[in-house]
Amino acid sequence: MLSVGVNGYGTIGKRVADAVRVQPDMTVRGVAKTSPGHVADHATSIGYPLYAVSEDEIASFEAAGLDVAGTIRELVAKSDVIVDATPGGIGEQNHTLYEQLETPAVFQGAETPAVAETSFNARANYDEARDASYVRVVSCNTTGLSRLLAPLKEAYGIDAVRATLIRRGGDPDQPSRGPINDILPDPVTVPSHHGPDVRTIFPSLSIDTMGVTVPATLMHLHGVNVTLESTPDIEAVRDLLAKEPRIFVVPESARIEGCGALREFARDAGRPRGDIWENCIWDESISVSGSEFYCFQAIHQEADVVPENVDALRAMFNLKDAAESIATTDERLGVSF
Amino acid sequence: MLSVGVNGYGTIGKRVADAVRVQPDMTVRGVAKTSPGHVADHATSIGYPLYAVSEDEIASFEAAGLDVAGTIRELVAKSDVIVDATPGGIGEQNHTLYEQLETPAVFQGAETPAVAETSFNARANYDEARDASYVRVVSCNTTGLSRLLAPLKEAYGIDAVRATLIRRGGDPDQPSRGPINDILPDPVTVPSHHGPDVRTIFPSLSIDTMGVTVPATLMHLHGVNVTLESTPDIEAVRDLLAKEPRIFVVPESARIEGCGALREFARDAGRPRGDIWENCIWDESISVSGSEFYCFQAIHQEADVVPENVDALRAMFNLKDAAESIATTDERLGVSF
Amino acid sequence: MLSVGVNGYGTIGKRVADAVRVQPDMTVRGVAKTSPGHVADHATSIGYPLYAVSEDEIASFEAAGLDVAGTIRELVAKSDVIVDATPGGIGEQNHTLYEQLETPAVFQGAETPAVAETSFNARANYDEARDASYVRVVSCNTTGLSRLLAPLKEAYGIDAVRATLIRRGGDPDQPSRGPINDILPDPVTVPSHHGPDVRTIFPSLSIDTMGVTVPATLMHLHGVNVTLESTPDIEAVRDLLAKEPRIFVVPESARIEGCGALREFARDAGRPRGDIWENCIWDESISVSGSEFYCFQAIHQEADVVPENVDALRAMFNLKDAAESIATTDERLGVSF
Amino acid sequence: MLSVGVNGYGTIGKRVADAVRVQPDMTVRGVAKTSPGHVADHATSIGYPLYAVSEDEIASFEAAGLDVAGTIRELVAKSDVIVDATPGGIGEQNHTLYEQLETPAVFQGAETPAVAETSFNARANYDEARDASYVRVVSCNTTGLSRLLAPLKEAYGIDAVRATLIRRGGDPDQPSRGPINDILPDPVTVPSHHGPDVRTIFPSLSIDTMGVTVPATLMHLHGVNVTLESTPDIEAVRDLLAKEPRIFVVPESARIEGCGALREFARDAGRPRGDIWENCIWDESISVSGSEFYCFQAIHQEADVVPENVDALRAMFNLKDAAESIATTDERLGVSF
Ligand SMILES: NC(=O)c1ccc[n+]([C@@H]2O[C@H](COP(=O)([O-])OP(=O)(O)OC[C@H]3O[C@@H](n4cnc5c(N)ncnc54)[C@H](O)[C@@H]3O)[C@@H](O)[C@H]2O)c1
Ligand SMILES: NC(=O)c1ccc[n+]([C@@H]2O[C@H](COP(=O)([O-])OP(=O)(O)OC[C@H]3O[C@@H](n4cnc5c(N)ncnc54)[C@H](O)[C@@H]3O)[C@@H](O)[C@H]2O)c1
Ligand SMILES: NC(=O)c1ccc[n+]([C@@H]2O[C@H](COP(=O)([O-])OP(=O)(O)OC[C@H]3O[C@@H](n4cnc5c(N)ncnc54)[C@H](O)[C@@H]3O)[C@@H](O)[C@H]2O)c1
Ligand SMILES: NC(=O)c1ccc[n+]([C@@H]2O[C@H](COP(=O)([O-])OP(=O)(O)OC[C@H]3O[C@@H](n4cnc5c(N)ncnc54)[C@H](O)[C@@H]3O)[C@@H](O)[C@H]2O)c1
Repeated sequence: MLSVGVNGYGTIGKRVADAVRVQPDMTVRGVAKTSPGHVADHATSIGYPLYAVSEDEIASFEAAGLDVAGTIRELVAKSDVIVDATPGGIGEQNHTLYEQLETPAVFQGAETPAVAETSFNARANYDEARDASYVRVVSCNTTGLSRLLAPLKEAYGIDAVRATLIRRGGDPDQPSRGPINDILPDPVTVPSHHGPDVRTIFPSLSIDTMGVTVPATLMHLHGVNVTLESTPDIEAVRDLLAKEPRIFVVPESARIEGCGALREFARDAGRPRGDIWENCIWDESISVSGSEFYCFQAIHQEADVVPENVDALRAMFNLKDAAESIATTDERLGVSF
Repeated sequence: MLSVGVNGYGTIGKRVADAVRVQPDMTVRGVAKTSPGHVADHATSIGYPLYAVSEDEIASFEAAGLDVAGTIRELVAKSDVIVDATPGGIGEQNHTLYEQLETPAVFQGAETPAVAETSFNARANYDEARDASYVRVVSCNTTGLSRLLAPLKEAYGIDAVRATLIRRGGDPDQPSRGPINDILPDPVTVPSHHGPDVRTIFPSLSIDTMGVTVPATLMHLHGVNVTLESTPDIEAVRDLLAKEPRIFVVPESARIEGCGALREFARDAGRPRGDIWENCIWDESISVSGSEFYCFQAIHQEADVVPENVDALRAMFNLKDAAESIATTDERLGVSF
Repeated sequence: MLSVGVNGYGTIGKRVADAVRVQPDMTVRGVAKTSPGHVADHATSIGYPLYAVSEDEIASFEAAGLDVAGTIRELVAKSDVIVDATPGGIGEQNHTLYEQLETPAVFQGAETPAVAETSFNARANYDEARDASYVRVVSCNTTGLSRLLAPLKEAYGIDAVRATLIRRGGDPDQPSRGPINDILPDPVTVPSHHGPDVRTIFPSLSIDTMGVTVPATLMHLHGVNVTLESTPDIEAVRDLLAKEPRIFVVPESARIEGCGALREFARDAGRPRGDIWENCIWDESISVSGSEFYCFQAIHQEADVVPENVDALRAMFNLKDAAESIATTDERLGVSF
Repeated sequence: MLSVGVNGYGTIGKRVADAVRVQPDMTVRGVAKTSPGHVADHATSIGYPLYAVSEDEIASFEAAGLDVAGTIRELVAKSDVIVDATPGGIGEQNHTLYEQLETPAVFQGAETPAVAETSFNARANYDEARDASYVRVVSCNTTGLSRLLAPLKEAYGIDAVRATLIRRGGDPDQPSRGPINDILPDPVTVPSHHGPDVRTIFPSLSIDTMGVTVPATLMHLHGVNVTLESTPDIEAVRDLLAKEPRIFVVPESARIEGCGALREFARDAGRPRGDIWENCIWDESISVSGSEFYCFQAIHQEADVVPENVDALRAMFNLKDAAESIATTDERLGVSF
């Protein structure tokens, strides 16, 4: 059993811990948080040993009635591997500690690619992470794009990608984030940094992205155009996408109009936290005309990277090959509607 | 086993069906919907027999690959009782059918009180519904107010209530509802119709309400002032509220700032659909000064009436007394954090 | 003096009336509205004769203390030309009346192109509307795209256009419109109907559009990609756009992050209603790499079609040529920051 | 002519400068800003001498092509009085400089009351500011409440006030402010700090307030209940409020549903920046039952304090008495619809 420590137990960290917990070949050694509150309470109610990020904070956890198992240093020392889900930039700082204690680690997408030996997407480049000590799971947006582009590239070749990423302004529990009534070019420069991030997975891909931020919290929406190197039949493309394990082709008959209805669908389906780990591509939006492919896909930012973190752990420790890992992760998590 | 048909399988209907299903003394006879789509798919995936509202619609369900067990008339005939969760005003129209087929029914809060023999809140007036054939579960807002006012009234007496109801504009899967960037007096007349609705439960209560609608989907927020007939100690009031089964006093230590965090808390807790059946009263907001009581409470509009519907069924058929019914409903549903 | 009647005095109609009023060669004959309220009050306070859409409504205007000059039939009979700014689809119905009374008319973008002899954008195809009796000013989005594409096409040739239109859900005074917390593919089919609408101006243009609707009221945002037929220098493109009369290239030094700041800028500048008649293209977003051009442009949906309506009137009556008309309209209105 | 320097040229500062500029007895000596951008550009385009907050920033203004007249120290030295409209807390720090250079100053509502000799509302306590060197204009919310309470108190006596303040999350040009899809008790403690702030104007008033923050940018909405010391006729109360110069009683015939329509009304009326300096009380919301008064009022947070700042200047320098100052300010600004 791989013993996994989770450093940074917030939106991503708590989900990764819960995903690790249900896998047959790994276990949660403990989770580290900076401050008490309902999320920390929940961690202890599940039974995750709770570690404080620094000695100074132990008192505030104890004042809140929470048992602290130790500091992050102790968790890092005791774990076979750390999943670092701290806010962007902190992971890089933590890297020194992980190296010092010779504990491998998985970082998240807001860290610079240089923090790791490779950036990672299970569908696209699982093998790159084999035997690596430091791996970076790419961001929610890059994960979503990689899952879509990998099969298209393999099946038809890709000449160029143009994607507009219409991003949620904040997660549902982040009331301090805006905007309230605005549509923001974000960044205003074109192409955005998202394209280069996708190239950490597909090194020589021609991709231009435009980033936009809007007043919504549920999901990102991608408007994607791919110029293929061949001219496939639309039905073939549809089938190709439909059989991808982490793509959900939203059928017309479901009458799902937008992100709210998608998340409602997941809530009805009994998904934990109403999470959608899959890219959601509207079937009606899939368009193929000559070599031009278009679609709309919605990406649940809180969830899509979660199975990827699990697979990254297996790749690093050579526990399974890509197909086996993806199948195991998905089966245990409950991926696919 | 009480055999329950659900007419109107939307936001409320699907939740009531799921709540009935887990009770020891009742079962879902079938559910009726007007049109196919993912919600209907889900009903059949659970195994609820699906009925069409009219003969004409059977074809569209079948075109969507859904088996139709019959029309609503058949469901009404076969069920011991109907929970009508159709859109406001339709319930009143359906009343004739229910009477014709001599099937008792529970209506929802958007119907006129005259549709039923009594309006209902389990905590406040369970016994009024005993042996009644037609009962109306009051709206989400009135349910929330009733649960708060009942214990205050019993313990301290109520001189006057003033409440400002800051209402969500629409549910998460209703993209056609606004407002987008507005704060609406709704209705603009003061006091609003909500006070009289509360008086369907507490007939002679002095209550003035103001209604406001804002661009949010998660919960309603009530700012409540109660002038009591006595001057209790704040700790006594806190304890009184904390021991109410369908009130959750949000502790300061949980660091829950608003409705987003509350719903996140429920998602983490594994609640089905992230639902919160309880009134959520912030402990820090409870204020008692002389005879003046104040608090903020958040009400999950999609969820709070659900256990009330179950209790209404038990009251009508004299299956249990109030305390037993509430305890059974809550235990089977998983109420209380 | 061209005598102009405005049928449908709402968001667009009131602005067109005000724009007509300040032109040297035209005058407002009267405006027609269906119902009283502050917008009708304002019309009479300016001195626009107010016409009722039907005889039946005269009473309700009079009850509100408003003088009614007659019915729409009378206004149509008395005017040299009508600007029809009624809600989408009504214009088509009104067409019969206009023909009957032999009054030429300008329609708005929500009408089918077939309602008119030509669709119109002053910059792109002014001469098409010369001597026409029925002209349709294209929608806010198509107007914005036409103004950008016309100079690019003339200067460099256009191979293909791909645009993602991120649209505001409703205008600021439309509280019943949503969505509240959603991002909607709208329409979900790709390419959207916006491309064909642009082809009513540029008949053989290769253009694919994707439509999205978000919870904002201030402006639309377009993410635009144009594959040019040549490979211009970025500075040349910038200069080309900067010298267009109805394009405002937003300088980096202005530190304008999004639509909210743009509208604030217009409010500070003293624009009537804070209106922005120009396409707003962020200078930092302009990107040229080989033959690929990209930019972000914001479009004030309430305003951009207003000068176009004025120009359409001049074209139809051969009052001026395109350059003169645009210059006159803009000078009288105050276009250009 | 009173020579007025404005320190902090943002949302409030720019409006106060424009209001001072149109008064017969005062002039804008200059305005100070921390950084360049479109707001600074606009200041210079009007002709306001621009001062930098520190020497270090002069370079960045000059790099942006803006002439800098000097530093804030110079502006303070040259002005008869400063209006400090810097962000909350900075005013208090600036106090030392103003004292050092013996320049009187007006502060804004986010500063602690202790920063000034008196807190100020022209309608309620103009004379308190006579001859004072340091005056604090109360916040937008407190200004709105004071204007409503002053006439009610004078005419009928006030026993108790209970107000729920439903506040906009941010101004239209503040995209970094949230919440996006939330309703926040803010502060969660009841009563909120707003009541004590109102008591800086009405020292012994019994007032309890509840603060809420929602995803909207246009205005605050207050739900107000006042228990009067007498039992006036509703028509008398309506007349009392309607004749207040800075209260606009929104007539039912205007069909104005919410804040969006109110601001649209102001835009149509040609108000600079679409500003509404008045409290907007919906006529239909005014309710009087026995001694209980209720109403809804909307407050344009960017605008209502602006005329108050002008009056504060006059009071401090004994230029006019209250009624004359209010009349002059309003006439020059264009207050009243
Ligand atoms: N939220 C998303 O949508 C999303 C999606 C994909 C990837 N990510 C990435 O995942 C990472 C975490 O993001 P998140 O949204 O979960 O953030 P979050 O703020 O929800 O959680 C971060 C957690 O880290 C803790 N923390 C803060 N400082 C810390 C420190 N110095 N050491 C240890 N823990 C610390 C916080 O207490 C919190 O529990 C970021 O790199 C982010 O870019 C986030
Ligand atoms: N959503 C809430 O927040 C909420 C809260 C409390 C009470 N209620 C009340 O519950 C009732 C239902 O509201 P909802 O939000 O679940 O609505 P909904 O629109 O989500 O669901 C209504 C369902 O009724 C079906 N339907 C429509 N017309 C019908 C007809 N003629 N016959 C049978 N079924 C029909 C629709 O297909 C849909 O499935 C209303 O009275 C409402 O006021 C709603
Ligand atoms: N609002 C925008 O953003 C926008 C932008 C560009 C084009 N348009 C187009 O302009 C047209 C008008 O849109 P709007 O936003 O001004 O609408 P609106 O609803 O603001 O105004 C429409 C006006 O028409 C009146 N009206 C309704 N029915 C009528 C009838 N039968 N006869 C005469 N008048 C009638 C209404 O009273 C109202 O005053 C539509 O075609 C729309 O697509 C709107
Ligand atoms: N915006 C509102 O709704 C509102 C309403 C009433 C009162 N107020 C109060 O008015 C004051 C100003 O608020 P605002 O909304 O205009 O803020 P703002 O952020 O729009 O403007 C503040 C200005 O001060 C400048 N500034 C920042 N630091 C400074 C410093 N150290 N010295 C000098 N200038 C500095 C900034 O460049 C900016 O121009 C605050 O006290 C606020 O509470 C604001």
